[in-house]
Amino acid sequence: MRATVFHAPHDVRVERVADPKILEPTDAVVRITHACICGSDLWFYRGDAKWKPGWRTGHEWMGIVEDAGRDVRSLKKGDRVIAPFSFSDGTCEFCHKNLQTSCVNGGFWGGADNDGGQAEAVRAPLADGTLVKVADEIKDDEAILRKLLALTDVMGTGHHAALSAGVKPGVTAAVVGDGAVGLCGVLAARRLGAERIIVFGRHEARLDVARRFGATDVVTERGKPAIARAIEMTAGGAECVLECVGNASSMELATGIARPGGTVGYVGVPYGALEGLNLRRMFSENIALRGGVAPVRAYIPELLADVVAGTLDPSPVFDLTVDLDGVPKGYAAMDERTAIKVMVIL
Amino acid sequence: MRATVFHAPHDVRVERVADPKILEPTDAVVRITHACICGSDLWFYRGDAKWKPGWRTGHEWMGIVEDAGRDVRSLKKGDRVIAPFSFSDGTCEFCHKNLQTSCVNGGFWGGADNDGGQAEAVRAPLADGTLVKVADEIKDDEAILRKLLALTDVMGTGHHAALSAGVKPGVTAAVVGDGAVGLCGVLAARRLGAERIIVFGRHEARLDVARRFGATDVVTERGKPAIARAIEMTAGGAECVLECVGNASSMELATGIARPGGTVGYVGVPYGALEGLNLRRMFSENIALRGGVAPVRAYIPELLADVVAGTLDPSPVFDLTVDLDGVPKGYAAMDERTAIKVMVIL
Repeated sequence: MRATVFHAPHDVRVERVADPKILEPTDAVVRITHACICGSDLWFYRGDAKWKPGWRTGHEWMGIVEDAGRDVRSLKKGDRVIAPFSFSDGTCEFCHKNLQTSCVNGGFWGGADNDGGQAEAVRAPLADGTLVKVADEIKDDEAILRKLLALTDVMGTGHHAALSAGVKPGVTAAVVGDGAVGLCGVLAARRLGAERIIVFGRHEARLDVARRFGATDVVTERGKPAIARAIEMTAGGAECVLECVGNASSMELATGIARPGGTVGYVGVPYGALEGLNLRRMFSENIALRGGVAPVRAYIPELLADVVAGTLDPSPVFDLTVDLDGVPKGYAAMDERTAIKVMVIL
Repeated sequence: MRATVFHAPHDVRVERVADPKILEPTDAVVRITHACICGSDLWFYRGDAKWKPGWRTGHEWMGIVEDAGRDVRSLKKGDRVIAPFSFSDGTCEFCHKNLQTSCVNGGFWGGADNDGGQAEAVRAPLADGTLVKVADEIKDDEAILRKLLALTDVMGTGHHAALSAGVKPGVTAAVVGDGAVGLCGVLAARRLGAERIIVFGRHEARLDVARRFGATDVVTERGKPAIARAIEMTAGGAECVLECVGNASSMELATGIARPGGTVGYVGVPYGALEGLNLRRMFSENIALRGGVAPVRAYIPELLADVVAGTLDPSPVFDLTVDLDGVPKGYAAMDERTAIKVMVIL
């Protein structure tokens, strides 16, 4: 089969690799139909994360089960499945706590040890605990599938930011980041009932999506002027802040605009975020920091139900579609910020 | 009157100052009967916090109302009162949220602008919002008063650490710090129902108090061996961690031993704590950081009720008693760690 392979920073290639097969009785082999390129893929693409040549790429994907190991109970050949961006056994303490990202037997797609989703197929370990079946009635409904694709990562991650920040009906939420996760954070905050949603950004196309998703206010300043503006707009800060970037300036902004007693829900993979963390202010104003890598497996069923019901549509975050051969071009577009998020259709 | 005044690091003196008087109609003047020296007083005593000569010291005190401004409704001359370590109006958004430390009109005793509690008397602003009256029946019960004295700061702060860490019946709690706040954190964790309470320390006298307060396990290692030991003892970490110190090594320990999905409740004033914060682990395991300066005003009524009922006694944290003239000696004893916490009886 063909799969995307990391060679060096700014150099990913689609090339022939061995076909996946069942290695453990809990495995499934899935033929991939839809995948994405993620903002967090840029960490290795830009050389910020230390990746080695030969590692597979892609952690967001959906597909059709081709084969299932003898211990797989919930899936069979032909089933349509959505994968969260990590796999998990579904049975350990942390899976039972809906914290599947800390599964004692779990792991992440791609990298040194596992198949990646930007490929024709994948071996999926712990299939019962990991993969979520899509009902047969809608398994070929392409319009629904393109909405569901965001549930593999960014929509669940935005939802995790909102939940971690404590969003509930009537609150003011501030969303730091206008990438796909930030935009999904806006959508999640609205879904959870936030009354006012302030988004920070400067890219008009992204802000347009933010407004469609429910943002009520936009702050285009950066740095300290952005903090001053948000504090003024909210007369003291936002109860709920969604930190959806993970660098020093985004964390400084997030911890600088939370209201006393409020919470920063953070889901941006922290690269330099510690330097921006305003611990002094957090301490003196009892601002909490919650969140982390999102257990999107926990959220797929409820978000899927809303997509099917027609009340949730995160698909506007996808603004470029490529085929498998177009994956390297998709990385370049995300790197150059000419695309918010890339969908890969196989 | 006489009051303790900061002159320079390692130099506090008891000297004559002007008598306090009512300046605002919401003020009270209180004659102090009991005060304490706090671990956080050591920050300026050691020169770590930048204090100026002439600033008053002491933020933990109880006393008898001598005079009350014309707008004071809840107190009259002769009432026995407990003061939390900050004053607050009792009417603003944050006071209504029981976050009196963020009161928009509030402040802290001592320092540049306000009287300190290591003195014969104090002008107490916002008396109605700040001071808690002790029932007349027990106002002269010296045994009860010495227990109540800890409610001015350390017991409420330990309780805030436990609440922030999410302690509830059955959990495993780990308490970082064997100072007065850490010991009160142990007591608070037991009061809230923790089943297992692990304390970290090496001072036998302090650990003895910890055991009396409910600690079930003691870890005497430091640094990485302490982390390894706690992770092993708990098979993966403690759900609730109380960080009661505030420096780099204590924060590294706290964030290193929390269980995935767990919470660090922190109340140690952060001096260097950011350097120890293991944000990578917090992110990958969804460990939350909550807490900050404790709104002890919120906790005095319920803790007072337990003291009066005989079910709560934090007074063993006091292991040295001095009179007002002995305050400088008390600072030296805390600085040299020959005393856990000093009580001042006037």
